[in-house]
Amino acid sequence: MNGESPVSIEQSKGGSEARQDQIGTKETIPAAVAAELAAIRKEIAELRAQVPEDRAALVVFSGDLDRAIAAFVIATGAAAAGLETTLFFTFWGLSILKKKNGAAISKRDLMQKMFAMMTPSSSESLGVSKMNYFGIGATMLRTMMKKQQVASLEDLIELARELGVRIIGCTMSMDVMGIDKAELFDGIELGGVATFMGEAARARVSLFI
Amino acid sequence: MNGESPVSIEQSKGGSEARQDQIGTKETIPAAVAAELAAIRKEIAELRAQVPEDRAALVVFSGDLDRAIAAFVIATGAAAAGLETTLFFTFWGLSILKKKNGAAISKRDLMQKMFAMMTPSSSESLGVSKMNYFGIGATMLRTMMKKQQVASLEDLIELARELGVRIIGCTMSMDVMGIDKAELFDGIELGGVATFMGEAARARVSLFI
Amino acid sequence: MNGESPVSIEQSKGGSEARQDQIGTKETIPAAVAAELAAIRKEIAELRAQVPEDRAALVVFSGDLDRAIAAFVIATGAAAAGLETTLFFTFWGLSILKKKNGAAISKRDLMQKMFAMMTPSSSESLGVSKMNYFGIGATMLRTMMKKQQVASLEDLIELARELGVRIIGCTMSMDVMGIDKAELFDGIELGGVATFMGEAARARVSLFI
Repeated sequence: MNGESPVSIEQSKGGSEARQDQIGTKETIPAAVAAELAAIRKEIAELRAQVPEDRAALVVFSGDLDRAIAAFVIATGAAAAGLETTLFFTFWGLSILKKKNGAAISKRDLMQKMFAMMTPSSSESLGVSKMNYFGIGATMLRTMMKKQQVASLEDLIELARELGVRIIGCTMSMDVMGIDKAELFDGIELGGVATFMGEAARARVSLFI
Repeated sequence: MNGESPVSIEQSKGGSEARQDQIGTKETIPAAVAAELAAIRKEIAELRAQVPEDRAALVVFSGDLDRAIAAFVIATGAAAAGLETTLFFTFWGLSILKKKNGAAISKRDLMQKMFAMMTPSSSESLGVSKMNYFGIGATMLRTMMKKQQVASLEDLIELARELGVRIIGCTMSMDVMGIDKAELFDGIELGGVATFMGEAARARVSLFI
Repeated sequence: MNGESPVSIEQSKGGSEARQDQIGTKETIPAAVAAELAAIRKEIAELRAQVPEDRAALVVFSGDLDRAIAAFVIATGAAAAGLETTLFFTFWGLSILKKKNGAAISKRDLMQKMFAMMTPSSSESLGVSKMNYFGIGATMLRTMMKKQQVASLEDLIELARELGVRIIGCTMSMDVMGIDKAELFDGIELGGVATFMGEAARARVSLFI
């Protein structure tokens, strides 16, 4: 190997990190091999961009207590498993994010006021999806969870925030329902379907709850 | 490098595209390196087959107006984000695809006729999943969306079709419910669970709505 | 090529499988190339660990007959398509797994007893999510499915088990609702959200039903 036709190691790196162990040696990589290696590295970079990331993205559409609990159990489970987790709250799901005794919104129109009266005023007044019987089902579920020392919905929300779960309120639903950011917990992000898809398209797990 | 033991570049390509830049040179790749490169390319090809494609696959099981809107907002959002998007309509979801004043189907049996009477006759008569109160909730939601200049369900369906979203009706559900293809919008594909899984298994995002 | 600076093939394998075809030849791989190949193989191994596996993971939260049927149609479809499929039953979904005439559980407290009375006692007494009318809707759906020779829910459960679909009952929900393992079909696994996430994070398809 006389070093004439092969390119030197310095010329052959083709986007890869420098090989410290080669420094000072007279090692060379033939140009044809270097071209093959560069092509392979390009293919690997393309694949890397397409592989799912350690993310989970959940739409919370439902405003039922039981489904809200499921959403936060899954979200905290995903975060605990090392996934960067995003919860996107839309439609009825926004009720889960309402502060207790949140600011009354004066700029609502009549229909939005009716809607606000008919939907839960905070996470504490959510009903269950089955057998709600004007709130008895929800009270039963909360009592049974407490007795079994299972975290309440409010504990789960707190835990999710501590674990860094990203919580996004859907702006389109907020506009339609006349919900203002001031009514929601502090530190909620706002976003649209594009924000959700940006997470979901890169995620390992996506669910609609 | 005397070219005896190394193979020439022409022999070493091993399934990869020809390197135009090598033509005319006397570059060679040692056979051992060529074998390694071929093995690596095979592994990359295997990985490529397993990486998710830019697709989204949504099951629309629900026939509620609010969930139908969510399904089409997500589907058009996914399509706008560059994902080839498929909506698979099954069970109650098929009501969303019914043409207004669609053909009356005479071959239904008594039970299928009862079912048809009890389910919405088109997207315009869907109820909402909560607080429907014999259609008042749906009317309120439609009015509130219009006031906020949010696209109606029918606009969203139109937009989805323009964006190339694939719409599939579930044949098993159609058989069970006695729904004929003539009752559905024109241009709907028909398929079964295998069709859905074919999309979902390759997709970045799959949701059940 | 005199073999002085290049490393021999035996030294250059760097974790990859031995190349049988090279044995006995005097082929060598230059050390610089060997280092590049080893780095590439490491990157490929990392990618392989991140690529989704041929798995599907479904949460069955709903205890409605129609959604239970959808869950088992999708699960058997996924298994038939070659995906290792897991169904994780939680909340109302646990009713689907209850044995007919299962053991009466004496250690339930009053509220759990009330809950047990109010929830279906087996898959055969599930209602439908819409138009249930005290069970008429469920009877109609079962009759219509039978007439169209579509498999019943119980047939689908049987088929899922034959296809090797993994069925997991959620321990947290069982604790809250006071459901004992003895009440469920034989051969059900028990697990928590971590068990589900372990499957979902590796799966191609994840759905919440």
